Amino acid sequence: MSDPDLTAVEAALQSQRIETPSWAYGNSGTRFKVFAQPGVPRTPEEKLDDAARVHEHTGVAPSVALHIPWDKVDDYGALAAHAKDRGLRLGTINANVFQDDDYKLGSVTHPDAAVRRKALDHLLECVDIMDATGSRDLKLWFADGTNYPGQDDIRARQDRLAESLTAVYDRLGEGQRMLLEYKFFEPAFYTTDVPDWGTAYAHCLRLGPKAQVVVDTGHHAPGTNIEFIVALLLREGKLGGFDFNSRFYADDDLMVGSADPFQLFRIMYEVVRGGALEEDAGIAFMLDQCHNIEPKIPAIIRSVMNVQEATAKALLVDRETLAVAQRSGDVLGANAVLMDAYNTDVRPLLARIRQERGLGPDPVAAYHRSGWAEKITGERKGGRQAGWGA
Amino acid sequence: MSDPDLTAVEAALQSQRIETPSWAYGNSGTRFKVFAQPGVPRTPEEKLDDAARVHEHTGVAPSVALHIPWDKVDDYGALAAHAKDRGLRLGTINANVFQDDDYKLGSVTHPDAAVRRKALDHLLECVDIMDATGSRDLKLWFADGTNYPGQDDIRARQDRLAESLTAVYDRLGEGQRMLLEYKFFEPAFYTTDVPDWGTAYAHCLRLGPKAQVVVDTGHHAPGTNIEFIVALLLREGKLGGFDFNSRFYADDDLMVGSADPFQLFRIMYEVVRGGALEEDAGIAFMLDQCHNIEPKIPAIIRSVMNVQEATAKALLVDRETLAVAQRSGDVLGANAVLMDAYNTDVRPLLARIRQERGLGPDPVAAYHRSGWAEKITGERKGGRQAGWGA
Amino acid sequence: MSDPDLTAVEAALQSQRIETPSWAYGNSGTRFKVFAQPGVPRTPEEKLDDAARVHEHTGVAPSVALHIPWDKVDDYGALAAHAKDRGLRLGTINANVFQDDDYKLGSVTHPDAAVRRKALDHLLECVDIMDATGSRDLKLWFADGTNYPGQDDIRARQDRLAESLTAVYDRLGEGQRMLLEYKFFEPAFYTTDVPDWGTAYAHCLRLGPKAQVVVDTGHHAPGTNIEFIVALLLREGKLGGFDFNSRFYADDDLMVGSADPFQLFRIMYEVVRGGALEEDAGIAFMLDQCHNIEPKIPAIIRSVMNVQEATAKALLVDRETLAVAQRSGDVLGANAVLMDAYNTDVRPLLARIRQERGLGPDPVAAYHRSGWAEKITGERKGGRQAGWGA
Amino acid sequence: MSDPDLTAVEAALQSQRIETPSWAYGNSGTRFKVFAQPGVPRTPEEKLDDAARVHEHTGVAPSVALHIPWDKVDDYGALAAHAKDRGLRLGTINANVFQDDDYKLGSVTHPDAAVRRKALDHLLECVDIMDATGSRDLKLWFADGTNYPGQDDIRARQDRLAESLTAVYDRLGEGQRMLLEYKFFEPAFYTTDVPDWGTAYAHCLRLGPKAQVVVDTGHHAPGTNIEFIVALLLREGKLGGFDFNSRFYADDDLMVGSADPFQLFRIMYEVVRGGALEEDAGIAFMLDQCHNIEPKIPAIIRSVMNVQEATAKALLVDRETLAVAQRSGDVLGANAVLMDAYNTDVRPLLARIRQERGLGPDPVAAYHRSGWAEKITGERKGGRQAGWGA
Repeated sequence: MSDPDLTAVEAALQSQRIETPSWAYGNSGTRFKVFAQPGVPRTPEEKLDDAARVHEHTGVAPSVALHIPWDKVDDYGALAAHAKDRGLRLGTINANVFQDDDYKLGSVTHPDAAVRRKALDHLLECVDIMDATGSRDLKLWFADGTNYPGQDDIRARQDRLAESLTAVYDRLGEGQRMLLEYKFFEPAFYTTDVPDWGTAYAHCLRLGPKAQVVVDTGHHAPGTNIEFIVALLLREGKLGGFDFNSRFYADDDLMVGSADPFQLFRIMYEVVRGGALEEDAGIAFMLDQCHNIEPKIPAIIRSVMNVQEATAKALLVDRETLAVAQRSGDVLGANAVLMDAYNTDVRPLLARIRQERGLGPDPVAAYHRSGWAEKITGERKGGRQAGWGA
Repeated sequence: MSDPDLTAVEAALQSQRIETPSWAYGNSGTRFKVFAQPGVPRTPEEKLDDAARVHEHTGVAPSVALHIPWDKVDDYGALAAHAKDRGLRLGTINANVFQDDDYKLGSVTHPDAAVRRKALDHLLECVDIMDATGSRDLKLWFADGTNYPGQDDIRARQDRLAESLTAVYDRLGEGQRMLLEYKFFEPAFYTTDVPDWGTAYAHCLRLGPKAQVVVDTGHHAPGTNIEFIVALLLREGKLGGFDFNSRFYADDDLMVGSADPFQLFRIMYEVVRGGALEEDAGIAFMLDQCHNIEPKIPAIIRSVMNVQEATAKALLVDRETLAVAQRSGDVLGANAVLMDAYNTDVRPLLARIRQERGLGPDPVAAYHRSGWAEKITGERKGGRQAGWGA
Repeated sequence: MSDPDLTAVEAALQSQRIETPSWAYGNSGTRFKVFAQPGVPRTPEEKLDDAARVHEHTGVAPSVALHIPWDKVDDYGALAAHAKDRGLRLGTINANVFQDDDYKLGSVTHPDAAVRRKALDHLLECVDIMDATGSRDLKLWFADGTNYPGQDDIRARQDRLAESLTAVYDRLGEGQRMLLEYKFFEPAFYTTDVPDWGTAYAHCLRLGPKAQVVVDTGHHAPGTNIEFIVALLLREGKLGGFDFNSRFYADDDLMVGSADPFQLFRIMYEVVRGGALEEDAGIAFMLDQCHNIEPKIPAIIRSVMNVQEATAKALLVDRETLAVAQRSGDVLGANAVLMDAYNTDVRPLLARIRQERGLGPDPVAAYHRSGWAEKITGERKGGRQAGWGA
Repeated sequence: MSDPDLTAVEAALQSQRIETPSWAYGNSGTRFKVFAQPGVPRTPEEKLDDAARVHEHTGVAPSVALHIPWDKVDDYGALAAHAKDRGLRLGTINANVFQDDDYKLGSVTHPDAAVRRKALDHLLECVDIMDATGSRDLKLWFADGTNYPGQDDIRARQDRLAESLTAVYDRLGEGQRMLLEYKFFEPAFYTTDVPDWGTAYAHCLRLGPKAQVVVDTGHHAPGTNIEFIVALLLREGKLGGFDFNSRFYADDDLMVGSADPFQLFRIMYEVVRGGALEEDAGIAFMLDQCHNIEPKIPAIIRSVMNVQEATAKALLVDRETLAVAQRSGDVLGANAVLMDAYNTDVRPLLARIRQERGLGPDPVAAYHRSGWAEKITGERKGGRQAGWGA
């Protein structure tokens, strides 16, 4: 078996970038309970301070996604400067049209035109913020949908959705994109208005090249083959990025790779195979998860590492040998080539790459040694901890 | 086809009782948002006032389940009297060991003995409350479990669970029961400590006759045949009752019968077939659902009606003809007998039964005409609305 | 509540047509066992003789789908004449590229070009047969896919699929269509090459207006909202038809409407709402199911009736009142309008319609009285019973 | 982090035994097609010849499960001798009461007592065969169930099942056991009569200590936590063994560990943690899978290796460190200990162990070099290939 070029593998791992979400640094929970944690940030600036620790120890997480209005500030220039001082930049802008009482029955798909207008105005405001922060991507996830059969007209909601998306699309500037997310369930229980990649794809296709589909790994029906979707969207030129996380059944807030690391590897293999790891492919690799019971910063570091390990394994697949086995119909041989890479322990490789960059070989251990957890626990007293809705 | 005895059907429907949960009258929501509604109760007493409206219009909902500590009061005798004045009685006591910060990693299965003790004390307190309210049943649902593989020792948690359950069981008085609920997922994402009926059954079997399994219709894996479980538990003498609700995929808060009315009918058929509609069978028929986006009182009325309609259809099954078809291996014939009952429009029958009791034929319409919604919207200003955690 | 125009409802039910599949009249089974039944047809002609009984008693099943090569004959003109003599016509041609040893690793997506060519030739032969039978639709379902990760290149298989579909599309004559079916699982266990509506849609979109998606009600992941897909495809002008059947978990061979009649009603409501019941909408309503343990002809009659009943209920939805409730955000009111139609017993209405056409009110009973079952059991001795693969 | 004792790990891996199933050496397929393979055995003896190759190259597969009547022979003593000559022994006897036309509506749960008697006689005959072969275990899987609601009385079927199981139990000799398998779906589509571990457990509990539950890894609802069930059954002393295989959605015939290797590791961890790897725990580790498209012997070798690798990783878990992290509520730390073992590449360790026993380090490669495949392809001409039903 011929080995892939290790230099190229290392170079790819060196250049990979993973965006962390501001909300993962704040408190979160389930519908049953939000458990508060000591030292949690109280402001967008403190979230960036924490994110800087993740980047400091991993070296691959230089940008932070914002959630509006949770990260609303008066001066985005100042926020960007705060980020820059810490070696970070502001990343994707996430719109939030689900936490206002007006959105009980939907936002851009609401039967009432006034509510739709309010939601659209928020989306347009997010593009204004992108102008201020220099963000490339607007990520759109809608909690819209219905809970009961008959509650609203499924098809009319698509018309309303298309109308709002068009208005946002037309507002996008040069180099700006819209990433449309789909979700199979929750919090709308009977229908969500963008339940699957097909729906997101159909809308993005109609909108144009600036509209791309984002795959959230936690948003599919049981048994869905996610890497197939990734391969397909890449083939169609319509994959904009990933929201990484894990789930076993419902809430999609577990650390990426923690529920099914083999699936994450398969997804990353299709990314590699589709050339989507290249920077000019424009794929955004983002985490979208919350840490309800585990300490947040080390959980985010672990998540970044999990994506790195899956990527390293995907890069180690001997694609030439694989192609030969596939073309000759050698089922077991082809599977074995893939499994050979998956079964490789890539942690030494990643440790070496980190050390070459002057980082500690084990980012979680380095974080624990740094004293940051003790520092923020001591300093961040008073004020209101950031969290969902704050 | 011979018809079932209509007099017996009507008598069974007349005597059926469905318990409504105090928390369904308060605000609720998803992890994304709790939408407040006008006129929502601010106290346990006001919840009872609303529950009295459900009973007034349906005639079959005379008891109300309490949730401790949400419904904690100084004087349970006074609360019981408040209920009695409105034609109600206090029903099942629901323990809550999931909304305290100490319970982040579990309650009765927590690795720390001090937390387990605290949880157990709460459960024992609930039995004290049962003594005061005269409630028969203590309903136990545990949010306990783990989010990540390895987080805790799955088997040791069973030992801890067994220990606490035994202590509660030993505290139960004459005529008191413990209903153990299972749940396949959420809010513990990797394992729940009582994930399926088998686990609940094994514990109840060991505990003794006062421990019974409660089936929550929303707590199963996709594709699970719930009526099979009902039939099995009845055969084993281990079915204590139902928590009724619906779900399409995740959160189990939709009105019972709204997602799959045919399933509800099949469940009620096994209830009828197993003799569990008889009062001396001791089966508790309870709603356990919340109304996040729809008005609460009419939603509860509709839910009660949905259970009644499913029961009526189940009672209308021509069991003699069915048995003949089953015994002769007539697949289509047997299925047709069941479907014949399901396809019957039982609303006229139920309307007649209501009218015979002096009720309006359409409880939802009667409620809307009553002016109660307008009254509480006008009167219940100020104070803090009841909801999850309040 | 204003009632829908009953005359229009009856007219719509009178004009509805449901195609039955030739293979449902033959033997079938699971991977564990095929149970033979007495009187099963031995030739395509005998299948048509049975199909004629379904149409005789229901009045709405005048066409029969063929499966090639199972229904291969020397003279399709003669077969069409045989059908015509019995009041039938030949319907959709179903291609079969999964029962030859060459197709072990796929047909049109096989890594070997020679196998792909063989599969394509079969598809083109099916269009030749369509020319001979006058069939409008070619239905394409592919068993293609992979069982193991790495077994083949997911994306390359899409390229191969696109190439074959294009060749077939280009061969289609005036007024001929290609219906592309998707299936989430089985018999390829890791990936199927057309797993979801999005994949079928993307291919059909590229091919052109003669390529349409067909929704098989049994081919979705657990929890999928099928009526949403129906609404969406109708909105996009890309729904070609239905393959009706039911399943609880896996094999999709149960009678349509037998597992979740409420779902079938919701699907038919979106059909009605989308104007797709009109003949010029060009939607093919087909059964695609097998009857492994129940007698085949009455099971098909029952299935036709189940579609009729769901359609009748869908037509009875008071759409004006529904629209008012939906627009005003009346969640419970809107749901109640839908449920009111669903809860209506439409069997008397359908019985009356049948009687107006000179049919018996209960087609199953009429069939049993006809003596056909006894006749074929007595006459069809010897020869080889038709079934999967024959 | 302290390391587990490597000597003990190696010893455990040396002593592990995995039973292979005779039917995996024969042809198999889906309901759509059985693809024949060259060189497939035509007799039980030839199946043993192939099984001997698996044991020759892995060193851990010395026993072969039989399926009656597929492996029925006149002289079981001779068959056992044939096995012994090849270093094998005959293992678990699998009863088959699903491939006779009489079993269309069930076997031991059939409504007709005569069919039940026939099925019971077969089960008793299997115990006779056990006496002849010296097998310890009778494995019982029932295809029994119903396809349609109402088809039969769910509860009465349990009574019939209990009656037959009791009769078989009473016939078991000293040192013989009955392993009762459950399956969530298929080939009975609406209910299976033993759908979950709880049902199997309840029956086994009533029967006595010789009745034990067998966990087939492919027989659960989506999202089921199988390792939880393993832990629970071990705690109850009611786990009899495993049927290993994989599935993504439906048919459970893929190589164990190929769909979710992390899950297999978690299962094996609970086995190790529960002391069930010890020989005196009496746990049967069996494969139960078929190889529809891949060559059978190397697929079985790979499956054996997959179980070994998962076992090795499970043995490498640093249980002391894990226990400390678990007891202190260190969620991330505990998870990291588990993942550390999972992420280890255990292939070098297993290669070394093989070499110490005089085996080749890579059993698949050794098999390919052996020329066996070419030999059987050349020699096994004519006759009827073994397969399902043969």
